[in-house]
Amino acid sequence: MTDRNIIRALVVETPSLPGNLGKVATAIGLSGGDIGDIETVKVGVASTLRNITVHCDDEEQLEQVLEGIRRLGDGIRLHAVSDDVLRAHEGGKIRMKSRLDIRSLADLRRVYTPGVADVCREIHKDPEKSRHYTSIADTVAIVTDGTAILGLGDVGPVAGLPVMEGKAALFDRFVGISGVPILLSTRDPEEMVRTVKNIAPGFGGILLEDISSPRCFEVEERLKQELDIPVMHDDQHGTAVVTLAAVITAGRNAGVDLKNAVVGQIGLGAAGIAICRMLMDYGVKQVIGADKSATAKERLRSIGGETVDELEELMERADIVVATTGVSGLIREEWVRKGQVILALSNPKPEIEPDVAQRAGAAYAADGRSVNNLLGFPGIFRGALNANAKKITRQMLVAAATAIAECTKEGDLVPHPLDPKVHQAVARAVEKHA
Amino acid sequence: MTDRNIIRALVVETPSLPGNLGKVATAIGLSGGDIGDIETVKVGVASTLRNITVHCDDEEQLEQVLEGIRRLGDGIRLHAVSDDVLRAHEGGKIRMKSRLDIRSLADLRRVYTPGVADVCREIHKDPEKSRHYTSIADTVAIVTDGTAILGLGDVGPVAGLPVMEGKAALFDRFVGISGVPILLSTRDPEEMVRTVKNIAPGFGGILLEDISSPRCFEVEERLKQELDIPVMHDDQHGTAVVTLAAVITAGRNAGVDLKNAVVGQIGLGAAGIAICRMLMDYGVKQVIGADKSATAKERLRSIGGETVDELEELMERADIVVATTGVSGLIREEWVRKGQVILALSNPKPEIEPDVAQRAGAAYAADGRSVNNLLGFPGIFRGALNANAKKITRQMLVAAATAIAECTKEGDLVPHPLDPKVHQAVARAVEKHA
Repeated sequence: MTDRNIIRALVVETPSLPGNLGKVATAIGLSGGDIGDIETVKVGVASTLRNITVHCDDEEQLEQVLEGIRRLGDGIRLHAVSDDVLRAHEGGKIRMKSRLDIRSLADLRRVYTPGVADVCREIHKDPEKSRHYTSIADTVAIVTDGTAILGLGDVGPVAGLPVMEGKAALFDRFVGISGVPILLSTRDPEEMVRTVKNIAPGFGGILLEDISSPRCFEVEERLKQELDIPVMHDDQHGTAVVTLAAVITAGRNAGVDLKNAVVGQIGLGAAGIAICRMLMDYGVKQVIGADKSATAKERLRSIGGETVDELEELMERADIVVATTGVSGLIREEWVRKGQVILALSNPKPEIEPDVAQRAGAAYAADGRSVNNLLGFPGIFRGALNANAKKITRQMLVAAATAIAECTKEGDLVPHPLDPKVHQAVARAVEKHA
Repeated sequence: MTDRNIIRALVVETPSLPGNLGKVATAIGLSGGDIGDIETVKVGVASTLRNITVHCDDEEQLEQVLEGIRRLGDGIRLHAVSDDVLRAHEGGKIRMKSRLDIRSLADLRRVYTPGVADVCREIHKDPEKSRHYTSIADTVAIVTDGTAILGLGDVGPVAGLPVMEGKAALFDRFVGISGVPILLSTRDPEEMVRTVKNIAPGFGGILLEDISSPRCFEVEERLKQELDIPVMHDDQHGTAVVTLAAVITAGRNAGVDLKNAVVGQIGLGAAGIAICRMLMDYGVKQVIGADKSATAKERLRSIGGETVDELEELMERADIVVATTGVSGLIREEWVRKGQVILALSNPKPEIEPDVAQRAGAAYAADGRSVNNLLGFPGIFRGALNANAKKITRQMLVAAATAIAECTKEGDLVPHPLDPKVHQAVARAVEKHA
């Protein structure tokens, strides 16, 4: 399965005879569609009804897939095409829920007035008790201005809300954190910092999300300095943690000694710089980077990295190559060195296809499909909150990456993101290093 | 049950013989404690174990209650005293929860990347769709600066969080609204307005809570003008709605024609002024008010009310008296007119005890114990959100009050706050008048 943009559920009826599903699957494949789950809805004597999930690149391809099925004939019928994704998001994905039943006046008097006054007084006397008697120690604000939503770019905070709700849903499912989307109507860094500081008392941590570069650097740095709760921009550090984990396992898979290897980072945007930093923090002695932008290169040098001007030079020198440029096909086959490790992480199309890289002699190659930052942020915040940490330090991030790498099965690049053990392992590692 | 400040659960063992619970209850009553729920934990052949909830005014009285039970002897033993209220608040009362299961990669791809991008694009094309594909239309920020928390006053926003969480829990339980506590670290009205505006895109409505007067007026008015979503300061308008409902039923119970009666409001703070306004909006032709503060009186005149300088004058002229001063015993018995309706609403001690007022000739008298603003805010916001209303108008508030009054059983002052039918009726009435 590749990261395709359109997901639809097709309701298809076929005669109950062997071979008919194969015809449908072939028709979908011939039009370039990918098949996801197939659910059998009804098996009748004469015909069988199935929900088939298909992934397509665009509307045009979807139309070809549908047309392909319609043309099959022989009693094969396409009954309906439904947008499963939109349906799943109807009404939003999250709700603030009461943890207590309120069925009697006695319940009401305990959780609301007059009982609640007791709790307020306790916290007023000793503010640390808010960690115990409120949700603060489990609550993280998910803050965005909507300027760099996924691959979509600047669609504004409201159009970005489905992503923030998704993060909140994942926080809930994996580590029991109460994630609260905060959509900022301002994109002025000064005003963003000021607003987040003004609402910070109700949160145990701040997850910055999808804020465009270079404003994200200033906003994050200032909030880290001026607040005494964990603050992290996921697109930089969350991504860097998971990437470091992938680099560690890729090195291990290829038998390369990471700390003594030359690692080349292609693309020095917010994520690229954060990856370079993580590599250095982990102990990689030589990190070299390339980018079109002089400012970006200057930024890498300012944190102690080395820059090169030509991609060819980087490809020639690096034992391990990490690319996060967003430019599909940027790495030419002829540049690949024998025994090199190549992680071309841009979505949906990598800088070089893994099979091409491997054919050209790479010892190990992967693209970004499985490098999901979902592997990082839940456990990182859970660990930091458990430790009552005032900040998320570089050591905590390295510990998270190492924990993810340790959970990875032999031969895989990263663990399965839905495996609860990974998130627990990350949380424990981060808490230990806090 | 009065609104007492300390609630404890006592674990008491008595011999399994008739009369022993009576002894315990008498001992508690003699020390001035009120008994709430009694739960029988174990009935043995020899002895019975019970959890007895007691309400006391203060620690001293609680000590007397405990001492009274300990002195009983005859095999009656006090095993434990636990703070049920604190226990109920442990870990906080609310959590942001995912509404969807995320069990498979297919789920993940639907609710998170890449599927979510589809939803973002839909909303980017048509922002109104955010009402459909996100939680916005069900989400209300519960905003406080912690300057006027319950009867406690200025304890700061963090110590006020248990109250905000309580409101969020009630929103969830009664009308399915996702209430998000927002604690402001600033108490400058300009900065408060600015902050709330900066985070407003993520919310369908703003409930202002426990903000001290006179800043609450400015903050609320500005936010109403500058935002196009419902904004309401509960301590003013929520309280006024429930009070108007109580005045309507009290008038009905006493056979007084409210619209043509003279209504006297004692205490012209934020709640008092809001009550005067509600009364006028409802159609009461003569509203007179009294307060120590000249500014407060000026405020009433500016909205069309009449002020008097002496309480005696108000008591002499008013057919219906509403008092919200916080001053226990302020209304003297000898001022009460025969046939008058008196609502002395201050908690925990009213301006005049209902039985005293009735002995002095009042046709109907009540205190504030049952006038719980929980009757108002959930349905008001549910109705406003359902209607996609840009503001909460005076007509919507009057409709809410009328709906509450209509749900009140013969002889009662207000309905039971846990009756779901009330909240539904309020929501419907508000939606209809939006």
